[in-house]
Amino acid sequence: MIIIDGLQYVNWNRELFQKAKDAGVTAIHVTIAYWENTRETLANIGDWHRLFRKYPELIMPVRTSADISSAQRSGRVGIVFGFQNCSPIEDDLRLVQVFHELGVRVMQLSYNNQSLLAAGCYEADDSGITRFGKEVIQEMNRVGMLIDMSHSAERSTLEAMELSSRPIAITHANPAFFHDALRNKSTQVLEALGESGGMLGLSLYPFHLKNGSDCTLESFCSMAVKAAEIVGVTQLGIGSDLCQNWDYSTLEWMRSGRWTADTDYGEGSADNQDWPRQPNWFASSRDFTNIASGLEAAGFGDADVRAILGENWLNFFEQSFGPADESN
Amino acid sequence: MIIIDGLQYVNWNRELFQKAKDAGVTAIHVTIAYWENTRETLANIGDWHRLFRKYPELIMPVRTSADISSAQRSGRVGIVFGFQNCSPIEDDLRLVQVFHELGVRVMQLSYNNQSLLAAGCYEADDSGITRFGKEVIQEMNRVGMLIDMSHSAERSTLEAMELSSRPIAITHANPAFFHDALRNKSTQVLEALGESGGMLGLSLYPFHLKNGSDCTLESFCSMAVKAAEIVGVTQLGIGSDLCQNWDYSTLEWMRSGRWTADTDYGEGSADNQDWPRQPNWFASSRDFTNIASGLEAAGFGDADVRAILGENWLNFFEQSFGPADESN
Repeated sequence: MIIIDGLQYVNWNRELFQKAKDAGVTAIHVTIAYWENTRETLANIGDWHRLFRKYPELIMPVRTSADISSAQRSGRVGIVFGFQNCSPIEDDLRLVQVFHELGVRVMQLSYNNQSLLAAGCYEADDSGITRFGKEVIQEMNRVGMLIDMSHSAERSTLEAMELSSRPIAITHANPAFFHDALRNKSTQVLEALGESGGMLGLSLYPFHLKNGSDCTLESFCSMAVKAAEIVGVTQLGIGSDLCQNWDYSTLEWMRSGRWTADTDYGEGSADNQDWPRQPNWFASSRDFTNIASGLEAAGFGDADVRAILGENWLNFFEQSFGPADESN
Repeated sequence: MIIIDGLQYVNWNRELFQKAKDAGVTAIHVTIAYWENTRETLANIGDWHRLFRKYPELIMPVRTSADISSAQRSGRVGIVFGFQNCSPIEDDLRLVQVFHELGVRVMQLSYNNQSLLAAGCYEADDSGITRFGKEVIQEMNRVGMLIDMSHSAERSTLEAMELSSRPIAITHANPAFFHDALRNKSTQVLEALGESGGMLGLSLYPFHLKNGSDCTLESFCSMAVKAAEIVGVTQLGIGSDLCQNWDYSTLEWMRSGRWTADTDYGEGSADNQDWPRQPNWFASSRDFTNIASGLEAAGFGDADVRAILGENWLNFFEQSFGPADESN
């Protein structure tokens, strides 16, 4: 079975790569940047080059969907580079192609705040897609960089789907009908995503789950049934948002970057600041088997379970990662 | 005939690309940076991406020697990216691979000044290869980025040849026995270059020529005979250092960058500041035919003339542009 995770953010080391490999994970969309500027992002990419050299038997870079198949054949974990924000391109349209050449295949148009391209889901007002944003969407469409609106606000997300000539993704978020968090998506967004051929990656991050860390597998999987009805079962995947091996300072960086001198608690709160506890049925990549069982128990057939756990992402990446003139 | 120019620095436009194409130039090593830092260099690379999109019938990017053959077959000018300084990698070893992935295939370890890696030929004292320089040489060897010592000082150049596990190049300079300029190379350097399998690209920049702009074709070509005896006829090419369509401010940038508030005249002088006049037998890429005739008149056989005008660079690039484990 092909298992593709639409997003993980992990402080990787040999042990964690080994665990992902042993769990049979075929590919993971990893995060290269949250608030990093161009120069800092290159350093992060350089660090990944070192990891590829250090663990050639465990991981390999993914630039095309064919690379994912190659990862599967060689029993390694394929690594897809992505940005959770547009900060790496600064104000320079040229850097979309530059980062595409460096293997970046996914970029969110915003994190939780207003960006140069779009509004984040924590802003009080939603700018929609900006002037620069329209240019960047065109350019991402041209080179084959997947537009990800996981952290973006409602109007911006709807506009991105309209403006993009290629389907977009919400790599890691849940339906708001399941749990009404700012980060989760309205039924209107999910419907538009489905109609436009986009992909939804369901999140296992406790703040996106009904009853948080105490969410049950049954509850999650019955939500998946309803989500599949809205976006289409071929457009549903997992984007676990699994975060591992980080200390609190990383969470502070993700939440507060350099944009506030105060503490921003993000999805947490003053009395619940730290990394949330994962639900016991999804503590690591090994637990994709639990998801598979849960989806089956919720009524998905075997083919659909395989589609949701990996094949849908594989097909979607195949149509998303190449230049526009080759794939459209 | 394959014509490869080991270095040109041109303010390109449609007309100048067309002229290079019409002249039958197969590939040119172009300069992406003199003093630019990482971020500025990415912008320059982005500008080249735009040129490739704008003039697809005239030019194409070269990442491998096979791309040069493809340029020849399609009648386009192949463009090889290179740096005349190491400023683009700043102090970060990781950026060697990053820029290699962006297509950069040649880097000088220094321009005319001391760099973080080596001394330039205008320094009073020659540091030799620095600690960071040794690391960068290893890394360039590993990824397949050609070490160019055209502007570096004597000791640094000799040390680079010793430290590098792969042959290096002096892409654009002449023997000092021909014209004793700081930029030209001692016979000791040329001998070491020849013994280590390196390449010398002969320069047509007037400041590197005997009698400057009034240098005769005969004088240049008889120098080439002697140079071939020293480095070997299979290790000799042309690196014309042809500069076209720039105004004086670009020359000031090349010479003074941001490192001096005064005017540095480089190879010129206070009473001879501007771009030098090219010798009348090499005013543009069209005049490679003159070089070919001149070399023949000086006694080179037809095969040697073809080798010097392009085939030697092609063979050298073939062994230089790939990762070490593939080519060594």
